[in-house]
Amino acid sequence: MADGKPTLHYLQDSQAHLVLWVLEELGIEYHLVLHNRIAARSPPELKAVHPLGKSPTLVTPSGRVITERSAITLWLLNTYDKAGRFRIPSSPTGEGTEDDDVVREEQLISLGGATLGPLLMMKLIFELLVRRAPFFVRPLVAGVRYALNSAFLDAELAHVVGYLDSELAAKDGKGSRKWFLGTEEPTRADFSTLWYLDWANQWGWIDMEKYPRLKEFHARCLERPAWKRALEKGNGYNLKFW
Amino acid sequence: MADGKPTLHYLQDSQAHLVLWVLEELGIEYHLVLHNRIAARSPPELKAVHPLGKSPTLVTPSGRVITERSAITLWLLNTYDKAGRFRIPSSPTGEGTEDDDVVREEQLISLGGATLGPLLMMKLIFELLVRRAPFFVRPLVAGVRYALNSAFLDAELAHVVGYLDSELAAKDGKGSRKWFLGTEEPTRADFSTLWYLDWANQWGWIDMEKYPRLKEFHARCLERPAWKRALEKGNGYNLKFW
Repeated sequence: MADGKPTLHYLQDSQAHLVLWVLEELGIEYHLVLHNRIAARSPPELKAVHPLGKSPTLVTPSGRVITERSAITLWLLNTYDKAGRFRIPSSPTGEGTEDDDVVREEQLISLGGATLGPLLMMKLIFELLVRRAPFFVRPLVAGVRYALNSAFLDAELAHVVGYLDSELAAKDGKGSRKWFLGTEEPTRADFSTLWYLDWANQWGWIDMEKYPRLKEFHARCLERPAWKRALEKGNGYNLKFW
Repeated sequence: MADGKPTLHYLQDSQAHLVLWVLEELGIEYHLVLHNRIAARSPPELKAVHPLGKSPTLVTPSGRVITERSAITLWLLNTYDKAGRFRIPSSPTGEGTEDDDVVREEQLISLGGATLGPLLMMKLIFELLVRRAPFFVRPLVAGVRYALNSAFLDAELAHVVGYLDSELAAKDGKGSRKWFLGTEEPTRADFSTLWYLDWANQWGWIDMEKYPRLKEFHARCLERPAWKRALEKGNGYNLKFW
């Protein structure tokens, strides 16, 4: 739209919620278009916004259409966070003793999207397969799920989540840091990671009690006024909706 | 190591190959440690390098250990490509008619890691499940795979790969561009995307003939002297090794 505001296409119970959180943190004006799932999937109307038909999708005031959450978040911060409130001071090389830089930020974002995401997607697919299997093969599909979980998925998930927990340790080894990059306010690494935690936690695939730093981080996110406003404005963030 | 060179831990038949390609493109000196798979998985020795035990892992000359391919690539370019040969001129906002910027770069990298990667991982897991299932349940597991492929995975994969192909269209609509961001040399978006193409193509899950721009892009990558040197120095890039 030509009124200088970006438009977020928000699908209920999806990653779009994390972008809504960022918009609220930035305190800018924006348009919000709420979409409902149809039979648990994205509705066809989203394909009219972008050929991939995915949520979240953001349309900028000049009409550029951006998909992929990490790209939308990057655009929002580049555009509206000129003061760098939600950014780390970037180091050009990433070398040296200080490693809270753009490389660590990228490492954490990629660990979520490219490592944790596929693990959670596989767990999800098997949950759905078991539920939707005809009753006479359901025990067998459940058996395959059990074999895959016990041979690989559950240990790998616990390992990666445990690593994330350790990444929140304070540099002096005492207690935990507020945000992943040691900043006073959340950065892209935090906006990114919360999604995977919520996904795993809401389905009961991880026990947050085992990850005290992540548990504190999780609570810290949910206490933010911007997060609470996002919950009121969206149309749902129940990731176990299937 | 304290001789000013980074060390790449390279697992055979893995994403590490794409990092080796970047190292060769940069033309720098580096150490290469080749690791072999054990029963198709990463060997335990990789856990001594980084707690996640993943490949690729890069150790910088100052001893910093970086995981996640996109983060390693970012560090390498930030450190060794001062002239910006493999980078796009970044625009601070991403706004305007010119959209070959850091946001589009992030969108393409995320589309690979967070969207295409999980789809390919699911296809791979079902291939392995069918192969490893006891013979008396194998037809049933193959049936589940068939149902999932035909209900969801194959159409989604074709849709995303088709979108990638369209992202290589020249701006004037005539023919295709050399690289995803319209540059003269490959950028992080190209280094990232080739992996997913190779994975899908080597397993026969996509027909490259249907994606003429991607097919040209693929050939363009493989023709590069740096790619050929990487093939000679690594210990294999056969992604269908299972």
